[in-house]
Parts: sequence; structure tokens; C-alpha cells
Amino acid sequence: MKHIKVGILGFGTVGAGVADCLLKNRVVISRRIGVDIELTGIGDLDTTSDRGVSIPSGILTDETESVIAKSDIVVELIGGTTVSRKFILSALKQGKAVVTANKALLADYGPELFAAAEAGGGTICYEASVGGGIPIIKALREGFVGNRINRIYGILNGTCNYILTRMEREGLGFEEVLKDAQRLGYAEANPSLDIDGFDTAHKAVILASLAYGGWHTTDEIYVQGIRDVSLLDIRFAEDLGYKIKLLGIIKQNADFRTEVRVHPTLIPAHAPLAGISDVFNGVMVNGDFVGDTLFYGRGAGRAATASAVVSDIADAALNLAQGIQQRIPAYRKSVESSGMVSMDEIVTGYYLRMLVDDRPGVLAQVASILSNRKISVSRLVQPDDSDKDGRVTIVAVTHETRESEMQAAVNDLEHIDAMYGKVCVLRMEEI
Amino acid sequence: MKHIKVGILGFGTVGAGVADCLLKNRVVISRRIGVDIELTGIGDLDTTSDRGVSIPSGILTDETESVIAKSDIVVELIGGTTVSRKFILSALKQGKAVVTANKALLADYGPELFAAAEAGGGTICYEASVGGGIPIIKALREGFVGNRINRIYGILNGTCNYILTRMEREGLGFEEVLKDAQRLGYAEANPSLDIDGFDTAHKAVILASLAYGGWHTTDEIYVQGIRDVSLLDIRFAEDLGYKIKLLGIIKQNADFRTEVRVHPTLIPAHAPLAGISDVFNGVMVNGDFVGDTLFYGRGAGRAATASAVVSDIADAALNLAQGIQQRIPAYRKSVESSGMVSMDEIVTGYYLRMLVDDRPGVLAQVASILSNRKISVSRLVQPDDSDKDGRVTIVAVTHETRESEMQAAVNDLEHIDAMYGKVCVLRMEEI
Repeated sequence: MKHIKVGILGFGTVGAGVADCLLKNRVVISRRIGVDIELTGIGDLDTTSDRGVSIPSGILTDETESVIAKSDIVVELIGGTTVSRKFILSALKQGKAVVTANKALLADYGPELFAAAEAGGGTICYEASVGGGIPIIKALREGFVGNRINRIYGILNGTCNYILTRMEREGLGFEEVLKDAQRLGYAEANPSLDIDGFDTAHKAVILASLAYGGWHTTDEIYVQGIRDVSLLDIRFAEDLGYKIKLLGIIKQNADFRTEVRVHPTLIPAHAPLAGISDVFNGVMVNGDFVGDTLFYGRGAGRAATASAVVSDIADAALNLAQGIQQRIPAYRKSVESSGMVSMDEIVTGYYLRMLVDDRPGVLAQVASILSNRKISVSRLVQPDDSDKDGRVTIVAVTHETRESEMQAAVNDLEHIDAMYGKVCVLRMEEI
Repeated sequence: MKHIKVGILGFGTVGAGVADCLLKNRVVISRRIGVDIELTGIGDLDTTSDRGVSIPSGILTDETESVIAKSDIVVELIGGTTVSRKFILSALKQGKAVVTANKALLADYGPELFAAAEAGGGTICYEASVGGGIPIIKALREGFVGNRINRIYGILNGTCNYILTRMEREGLGFEEVLKDAQRLGYAEANPSLDIDGFDTAHKAVILASLAYGGWHTTDEIYVQGIRDVSLLDIRFAEDLGYKIKLLGIIKQNADFRTEVRVHPTLIPAHAPLAGISDVFNGVMVNGDFVGDTLFYGRGAGRAATASAVVSDIADAALNLAQGIQQRIPAYRKSVESSGMVSMDEIVTGYYLRMLVDDRPGVLAQVASILSNRKISVSRLVQPDDSDKDGRVTIVAVTHETRESEMQAAVNDLEHIDAMYGKVCVLRMEEI
């Protein structure tokens, strides 16, 4: 049986999970794939802390380059985009197979890393970068290889889904749940990467590349997080038959142009994706032959991420054992898309919430502004009585509208005398 | 670019879907995998009927062996276990790569086919045999390669799920929905393969082999279909917070023995699997690292099945282009299981429904029989008033009980004077 040596860079939570998995399930993995995978090195500056996994003596070292040199497969689990990039480029230059879970690095430097892999004769695998334990990258690249991808909707960030789920279930406000999530370790001390949607955007960039080739940067796509989602909107959405989820949305239109965007989205409460709660991730893929499919699982955490990393290690080990640089191109430079749809051009349903003076004619004024912009309203409701200051909330739900028209209408609305503050605008998808 | 020739045997519904997919998406597939896949032959006795797909002239023939001879990859979509077996064995003897969606053939002749592939230097792929368009076989074999599989619960038959969904939603009886399903083409004229659970059993055999190696036959496993599921049970289950689904259940116990069984099962109404309705399939896999995952999609039909078949064709084409007989063994002869758990030994929760005389003491008698057999009852209810003949229904829900104890208790119950007919016994899973 062929024998492949694996080195892990970064002995943190996921690194410990990967070591645990490789050690615990080594025999069963080798029986399944016919290749023996041995963990031969772990590089980390901290060589003394207990990570709760018993590793063979002599393999943990702070000399990371030596781990790279003696491994066939290098697993980067350091995170960040500086040290991790340096070590990955070093490994690729040496022709190693690299496995990484680092979505931020991929989103920012994907094409550079793929080029380095090609030049060095190695490869780069990244199943764990999207959807944690869900094998969504393999599904898109291999399982749905026969399909044109029409659209992908992904709940891709466990922290955001956890916060939205608790707000909805317990009737708590965003800040309160965020604090509790931080206390419980479900959110970082600096939560911006998650709650402002950037982590979801990194993953959306990767999924878009798998679906249509090429590589977009996160700067090119619209990203809105969940910081401004209020309990009020969650409750109104519920009354309308919807749930609010932070979605990564990737679509190809009839003219083969691509849409990639990240924002809180109202989706029908009965949609399978709406049932995905807590820290779980879910990805819905629609292909021209397969139709609608859904994948669901733990999107983060030590063990689930380890499962995805080890599937990449097994793939890379099979390639090495069979003398193949890579089975399927890690990414396609050529783009099966005739360009990006700008945010102004997107067409979707909208949910608008506004606070206005409770006096006759205001509802009609709102309706008239929307109508003047040719926006078709499906529901216009005033859910509650006026507050102590004589103001009422109005909620409008629209049929499909162009974003630029909606922004113009919102600007009009925010200029009427009866309006207090900003209009809350959320987009809807009838998935 | 390497060029691979594909021949399809059987130009029925799925055959036409595969031809359509290969023709329509040839360019996008070749760009993704770097191999050009050409449909070069279709063998079918009927060379004249219109299948709604426009194929190049000269490739449809009734000389099936000539299609096999000139193809690199042979796609068997004839169905049945006689002619299909003959052609597959012929192709494998010639060292061809074979792709099939034929679960009945695999379940009955799997090891023979795998041995023929090995002997001939070819391979056999069968992604479309389970879960239609859902890439569940790739997920189990590659995506979860690092996991010990703890359990798999599958809604694997679209016809049964459609019937149970309509019974539940529309309050109709089994026979009525079955007739309508036959009229609409969702059930066969002879529906036994589907509704008596055998199709689900074929798929469970395949999933069990992927999880634990070896190959069980359907004779070795307990198979019960949905013919005896009554609307009454669906309603009582609902009141108790459950839904009834036909499940293929595959588990490995703490002593590494394997359980494989197929039967209608009460599962919690809030479980993600309970939300899978109509003709959709869903498979829940729990691995020791990945935890719970769920896959959902169309379990049958021309286009969804074609998607899975084409993913196998792409895999086989990559193997051929890269000079590999097969990347991962199509099946593992050795078994990672210390034997099967017999049906008598299984331990699960039970739902019992019985019709008894409405007189004092009967409920106590039922409770006492269950108690004498050391069966712990979680709920014992008499949901309705007595009927015109003075009989009432009693429903009992038990905690985990051994099947042999339950069968003995049911025998005791059926012998008390107050009992009418058989006790309806359904098993429960707290997934």
C-alpha cells in the first residue's frame, strides 16, 4: 500500500481536530482508499499547550518549514492572510499538495495560489473553506459536473445563523444575543468578519468560481451583514410567512451574466433553507438537470471542519499515489459568464419598513410614491397602533423591482414630511 | 484535450435524459474536467419512437453489442436484472468502464459485477442508483472518507414519500392516493417494488456497503412497506408530534455490529428529514467527525437521474484520461462490521395502535401486559370516544424496547378478550 506523509501547520482548534481524525480513523481511511496516510509533522509556535489530542512524540515542532519539507501534503490551518500565505506559497513552490480551510486567504489571493500550484507541479484543495463539514465543493465540482448552475443560496455563516435563530426564538435584540454568543464562544471578540457579512462573502466568491469559473474579489460584490436586522423585522417577516436569513446568493441570468451578493434575505418560512437553524449551514443548489438540491450540516467547529479537511487530504493522497498532479483543475481561469450584474440592476422582491406620523393620507402618500416609480406593491400594512408619540410603522412588500428603482423610491420616501429616520430595506427571495 | 466515447444502452426516460445532458452541456463539462465526452452510440430495440431529444444521426441502433464494442464508457439504463446483467458483464469483460443506475441489479448481483470489473480491468460506477440526483454515493465514499459512519436514515423512494405526503396533507386513504399516483405516473401499474419497500431495500443495501464494506442481500434485512400505514396512524402520529416516513435505516452499534432495515417510521415532526415531502428524497448521515448532515433532492425522474449518471461518466472519463482503472475501489470486500444485528435484537421506540372494548379495566390490562414484559410506556392514550359498536382505539408509545420483547407483548395483547384484530405496530426513531 502506498504511504503518504501529512504535515499540519497550525495546531489550534481545527488543527487538533484534523490530527485527531487522522490518528483515530487511519485504518478505516486506508481500507477505503487503498492509501495509508500518516501524520508526520505539526508546526506551531506553541509546542506545549494541551489540545486534548494525544499525538506521537516528536512530531510537534515550531520549525514550520521543516514540517513542509518532509511532508507530501501540507495542511494549512493557521488562518489569517499573512503567515498562512507565506507558508502555502513556500509549500507550493516545493511542489507539495496543499490543503487549506482558509476562505479569507482564498477570496483575496485565490488566483495567485492556483498559479503557484500550477507552476510548482502541486495542487491546492479547499473543501473545508465553505460549509464546514458539508462536502459542497465536491458536490458542485464533481456531483453536479453535468449541470449548468442556475442559482445557489447559502446560509454560510454559523455565527449569523445562530444570532438570527435566537433573536427569532427568544424575542431578543441583536446586541443582546451577540453578547451572549461571544460569552458562549459562538462569536469572536471582534465579530465584524462574521456579522458584517464578509465571511459569507469570502465563501460566496469561492462558490461563484466553482459555478462559473474565474475569480471575483469581495470588493466586486454587494455585502450587507445582520447588524441592522431588528427583532421587529423578524416578527413582521413571520407574520408575512417569511424568515430572515443571511444568504450568499449566486445566480446566472438568462443572458449568462452572474449575480453575486450577500445580504439578510426574507425567504418563505416553509422553504427547506428556512428550517436550517442555530450554527448549522445549508446550501441550496439548482442545476439545469438536477433541479433543486439542499445540503445541510455543521458549518464550523473542530470536528466537522476536520471531516472536510481529511476528505481533501484523502483526495490529494490518491492523486499522489496515482501520479496525478490534480484530478480536476482547482479552478477554471476562463469564465462561463458574460459579466457581472451590478447591484443597481438586480431584480428582486423588497420588504420596506418605515416609521411615519399617524395621520390620514400618509399611507396613500407612501403608496403613491411607490406607484410613481412603477413599483408594484403586493402588501401594504400598518401592523400596530400608533406609539405614544403618534407614530406608526408601515410595512410594504413589493413584487419584483429593479434595485435602482427601489433606491430612488426609498430616497423619495425618506424625504416626505411624515417620515421618521431611514426606511429599513430588506430583499426577498421566493425560493 | 483527451476524447472519451460514451455509449448508452436503453433509450427510455433516463437514457433520453442522459443523452440530452451530454449533448446540451458537452462544452461546459469539458471545460470543467479537461476531458471531452462524446456520445457515440445508443442501443435500443426501438429505434423509431420520438424521445423528445434530438440526437446526431447514425448513433441510435438496435445492435447493442456494437455500441458496447466502440465505447470507452458503457452506460446501462435498461433496467431489470436479466438483459442488463448480460450486457454489463459483456462490457466489463471487454475492460470497459460501466455506469449504471440499476439498484435492483446491484443489490442482487453487486459482488459478481465488481469482481467482473476487477478481472476485466474496468470499473463500475453507480451514483444514480441511490437518491437520484443527490450525490450521496460520492459524499459517503469521498466527502465523509474520514468518518466512521454512525447511522444513515434515508427517504429513498419518491413514490412512497409522495403517497405518504398526500395522505397526510389531504386526509386520503392509502388505496385512493395510490390509484391517483398511478394515474399521474408517480407509481407503476405494478407498484409492489416501491410500496412494499423493496426498492428502498435495494438502496439500503448499497448504502450499507458504502458505509461498512461487504455486501448484504435484501433477504438478510427486514423490509416492510407502506401498504398498511393508515390515515389513522398518520393523524395519531401528528397529535404526538411525529410524521410517518418510509426509511432505510443503516446503523453501526457500539459493538460494531450493523443494523440494516426498511420500515415506516415515526420521526419527530421538527426533524429536517420530516420536512422532505412529495417525490423528493433525503438522506441523513451521521459521521463521528462530521456529525449530522442532510442531503435533499429529486430522487427520480429523467433529468435528476441524468445529472447523477453524467457525474459518473465524468468520473470514469477522468480515470480513462489519466490511465487509472479506478480511483477508489467500487466496493470493499472486507467488512468493517462484526456481523449483522438480527431484527429480534434491535432496540427502538414503538407506537402501538389497538382497537378494544370500551369497558373499565381494559386500559389497565394493556398497561399491565406491557409492564409484565418490562416495556416502559411513555404515553398511553385513548384519543376518541367509543364507536357505535362500543369499541375504542388505544395508542401506546414506548421507550426503547427490544424487538423480541415487543413481539411477545403484541402476541399477549392480541390474545386478550377485549382486543379486536391485530395490533398495529410502528417503530420510532428520535432523529
